[in-house]
Amino acid sequence: MKILYAQTEILSGKPAQNFARCAEIVAKAKAQSADLLIFPELVISGKLLGDILDEDDFISDCEYYNAKLAALSDQKLSIVFGTIAFYETVFGKSFILPTGRRAKLNVACIAQNGRTNYRIKTSLSYDECRHFAAPVQYAGVTTEPIEIHNINFAINLGNEILKLRHEVSPAAEIIVNISSTPFYNGKKDEIYQRIETKACVYAMPLIYCGGIGVANTGKNVYVLDGISAVYDQQGNVIRQSPAFEEDLVAINYENGQIKGEETENQPITEPQTEMAQLHAALIYGIRKFLSQCGLQHVVIGASGGVDSTLAAALYAEAIGPKNLLLVNMPTKFNSQTTIQIAENLAKNIGCWYTSVPIGESVELSKRQIDGLKPKNAAGEEIELKLSSFNIENVQARDRGSRVLAAIASAWNGVFTNNGNKTECTVGYATLYGDVSGFFGAIGDLWKHQVYDLCRYINEKSDHGEIVPQKVLEIVPSAELSDNQNVDQDKGDPIIYPYHDRLFAAWRERNTPLALHTALKLYSEGKLAAELNGNKPSPLTEEFIKEKFPTAKDFCDDLENWYKKYKGLSVAKRIQAPPILRVTHNPYGSEYREPAVGAYFTKAYLDLKAEVAG
Amino acid sequence: MKILYAQTEILSGKPAQNFARCAEIVAKAKAQSADLLIFPELVISGKLLGDILDEDDFISDCEYYNAKLAALSDQKLSIVFGTIAFYETVFGKSFILPTGRRAKLNVACIAQNGRTNYRIKTSLSYDECRHFAAPVQYAGVTTEPIEIHNINFAINLGNEILKLRHEVSPAAEIIVNISSTPFYNGKKDEIYQRIETKACVYAMPLIYCGGIGVANTGKNVYVLDGISAVYDQQGNVIRQSPAFEEDLVAINYENGQIKGEETENQPITEPQTEMAQLHAALIYGIRKFLSQCGLQHVVIGASGGVDSTLAAALYAEAIGPKNLLLVNMPTKFNSQTTIQIAENLAKNIGCWYTSVPIGESVELSKRQIDGLKPKNAAGEEIELKLSSFNIENVQARDRGSRVLAAIASAWNGVFTNNGNKTECTVGYATLYGDVSGFFGAIGDLWKHQVYDLCRYINEKSDHGEIVPQKVLEIVPSAELSDNQNVDQDKGDPIIYPYHDRLFAAWRERNTPLALHTALKLYSEGKLAAELNGNKPSPLTEEFIKEKFPTAKDFCDDLENWYKKYKGLSVAKRIQAPPILRVTHNPYGSEYREPAVGAYFTKAYLDLKAEVAG
Repeated sequence: MKILYAQTEILSGKPAQNFARCAEIVAKAKAQSADLLIFPELVISGKLLGDILDEDDFISDCEYYNAKLAALSDQKLSIVFGTIAFYETVFGKSFILPTGRRAKLNVACIAQNGRTNYRIKTSLSYDECRHFAAPVQYAGVTTEPIEIHNINFAINLGNEILKLRHEVSPAAEIIVNISSTPFYNGKKDEIYQRIETKACVYAMPLIYCGGIGVANTGKNVYVLDGISAVYDQQGNVIRQSPAFEEDLVAINYENGQIKGEETENQPITEPQTEMAQLHAALIYGIRKFLSQCGLQHVVIGASGGVDSTLAAALYAEAIGPKNLLLVNMPTKFNSQTTIQIAENLAKNIGCWYTSVPIGESVELSKRQIDGLKPKNAAGEEIELKLSSFNIENVQARDRGSRVLAAIASAWNGVFTNNGNKTECTVGYATLYGDVSGFFGAIGDLWKHQVYDLCRYINEKSDHGEIVPQKVLEIVPSAELSDNQNVDQDKGDPIIYPYHDRLFAAWRERNTPLALHTALKLYSEGKLAAELNGNKPSPLTEEFIKEKFPTAKDFCDDLENWYKKYKGLSVAKRIQAPPILRVTHNPYGSEYREPAVGAYFTKAYLDLKAEVAG
Repeated sequence: MKILYAQTEILSGKPAQNFARCAEIVAKAKAQSADLLIFPELVISGKLLGDILDEDDFISDCEYYNAKLAALSDQKLSIVFGTIAFYETVFGKSFILPTGRRAKLNVACIAQNGRTNYRIKTSLSYDECRHFAAPVQYAGVTTEPIEIHNINFAINLGNEILKLRHEVSPAAEIIVNISSTPFYNGKKDEIYQRIETKACVYAMPLIYCGGIGVANTGKNVYVLDGISAVYDQQGNVIRQSPAFEEDLVAINYENGQIKGEETENQPITEPQTEMAQLHAALIYGIRKFLSQCGLQHVVIGASGGVDSTLAAALYAEAIGPKNLLLVNMPTKFNSQTTIQIAENLAKNIGCWYTSVPIGESVELSKRQIDGLKPKNAAGEEIELKLSSFNIENVQARDRGSRVLAAIASAWNGVFTNNGNKTECTVGYATLYGDVSGFFGAIGDLWKHQVYDLCRYINEKSDHGEIVPQKVLEIVPSAELSDNQNVDQDKGDPIIYPYHDRLFAAWRERNTPLALHTALKLYSEGKLAAELNGNKPSPLTEEFIKEKFPTAKDFCDDLENWYKKYKGLSVAKRIQAPPILRVTHNPYGSEYREPAVGAYFTKAYLDLKAEVAG
């Protein structure tokens, strides 16, 4: 039996185009005399469609193309593909969801000689439960086999393959899993290890077929990485497909044995470092999201700092330097050092570059607003005063909303958001200033990952330095006042080696690190160990003790940032651009955060009274 | 038996403060020798806390205050209150949710003489299922009675009282429902009718106790209206509490009969028109959201158009004119007509007023950017040109991000978003321009509701005109170019009588109106009837036919707006401020919309080919 799996690119919400792509692949499979062709999960509809799934005419269209794809199966070629169906199409009766809408199903459609059969995805994520019904959601499930050309296939979907309670019937001979799951940092190793284990546990060959593409929930953009793979019944890897590339792979199953067909391609992908995987995901996400949105020209406000530098290097690689324009927007507070970095960066990557000083505009705003005296009908007046802090924000907004927005529109393009996750956590950025742009490609990276990626880009470069070395040496700074002079080593108030990891403990854990636990660990001299976990880190207990000699110093700092995290930064995130997701816990639609301010628990306040007076 | 219900104000995420408020009310109840005191749902934790519910130390604090409130019960006074508990606190074992987090429960705690007992909310909304477990969620449920002072109470929570499949045991004598549900347009009539029916069906007295306050999900702000009520076993209303006010109401239950205590207050609230209810909700929402955020000063960009005029009238009433500053920001495109409206508006409401012309700044931006020639390292150059459309957006951003943001920060305040739901649907607004501000108080109102509310405000005014009459007479216009001259009746491209209702059919229905259905109805001359439903409306079949004489005209318009609705407007909504929710279907967190562009179904394209050639 000749089996082909197709690691296919899927366009979200475009069933007609997705069907057309599948039909091309079916033609190839027929030309190769395949017996079975396997497509990924949701290959017709696309993934993460949100409330588009409540549009019944859209679902009807998916069903129309489901039928057309199934009709391409024949006596020789059977087809397995993931798609959406109305609940009643499969069960013959309707089902109403808690939202009051008609239930849909996430299914594998098994088409044999024009006739169809379904396997329903039963292990649904919370977000999937909004639109899909899963009749046996919380119970243990056994995948019963489906016979195709006299061979028993256990076919399941998505992370059912990873679930302990999801059993495979011993009557099956081969396990097939179809997935379209998003990349996250560290995913590949984890997934491969878990499906290898599954093959071993059941002593069956296992074919894992993933889709590629981008999908989004509005606030978050996801990259689907594919990473399809085939394992034999001893758990030996037979084939692996590279991440983020379409791939059509043939394998043979004869006499209970699975093996790959001879091929000129590398059957097994090379191991990659964490930075290499992250870099690939970012490049793919930028390129595909732009293409999905029909965008070509991109403008980046290049300050000469590390964040915009990384963004520029990534976009240049993703879309080509001819489509990229860097704009430096200096005031008297910007050093020659950073201006030179921005110029060198543009030279290194070969993109367009210009400078638009903002001093005149900032002066105009000061002249118009500082000292302005609004009146009321009674003839009373108030006087408005712009503080130096207010003027820092005026500069940031002038760059984002006046200069970059106008340049982007004049070039028929968009401008980027270059915020990182550390800034985003505490809102160290200005709304309509640096919190603006069409897309935050590096918004799910902590500051130390921003540096690591810059170094990685230089290391892998074939034609010399991309990221100017100088940007990796100066202190991070917003350069909005004399107090932020990089040449005098004055920069951000965030102590990155510590706060990067503290903020991660608030955001990345399933149960966030409680403030009273942090304070307790500080008091015991164990906080650095807790924050570092088993990752290499420059953070030490001594560093923390040096920065915060007393428990009161520690609490003041902790409360200061926690108030920002739960306070004004929430308002900024509500209005922030979409973020490219590369972790399990990005900001955006996966994090439900109301704007209610910080709450300090009794446990924290009691412990503070005890250890910090 | 003397029963008190407390329509209590609840602060979201503030258990210590909520407990303190409850304790004050308990003291009053004891002073009145009450036997039973009833508080609303989630009175300790607050409502809509999102992923704060994943913070175990927060839940522990709630449980601490649950115990303190329960401990205030004694031999005489029993207390029923809504709150949050860990799953294991009630069931003695833990339960892990699909999100991987510990399950919590939304419970009624029944405290008698210091001992506690729980009733678990079983009818959960989709959003509640993210954090709460409901052991019997999809099945029919019967509320079994709990004995308090020898009387059997059936106690349920939230919309369990409205569910058909939620039964009450006949062994009960009185039904008690505790709720903290948000206002929506038309809610009061619907709720009262449904709980009255429930009292009749079971022939039992029914006490409905609601909480008041604001709650938010980040993107949406909700107002909890309270509207507590008591019905006797014949369904006669005994007591009703006014919306949006705290209320402590005593009733007596003796010999199977319930009756209200003598009181100086009106026991039953007056019927209110739809506009009066909407107006009350908006005023309360603005006032409480500002107070929750610790905000006092508000700046409004007053264009002399109807949206900013309504916003100004509402804020003036909610926070007082001394806290309100109107800023008119004219260019050469702004008519004396609208400037005069803005000035008169400020006079009518007695607030601060100033004018900041933006011509000079717009000219500076044109000078800096139009004709700018970025270069690359190879010495090549491109030239940037600002189109007249680009310059319209430059004006809008100059107003929002330069002037209003700076004035708001100089006054230590915030500025508002004045967008309505019609504009929001199709993104007829500029990002960082009129799509900016801290809060969109009128963002869930269609344009015709904006006009209706303006008229309502003038009708109810005791001291003459608030909304200048002229603003209700001119055409709606952005006044960003010569093509939008209000004195020549040139205005927005949106045909409000029709598009307002078309967009509502896309957004407000459980299953959106499909394009092919709209086209079919147009062809049959039945579209106006479908869009109007049973509501009074100026929209007629003739009006539609006059605007779109041919099916092709109709399709062109339909596709144009649908592309905006599913396209660029999504990107704008992603970055839009929070919206005050007054319908079941606001934009924001309740609407999951990915940015994937418009999809035209086969059904639509086929029908179009048939009727529009």
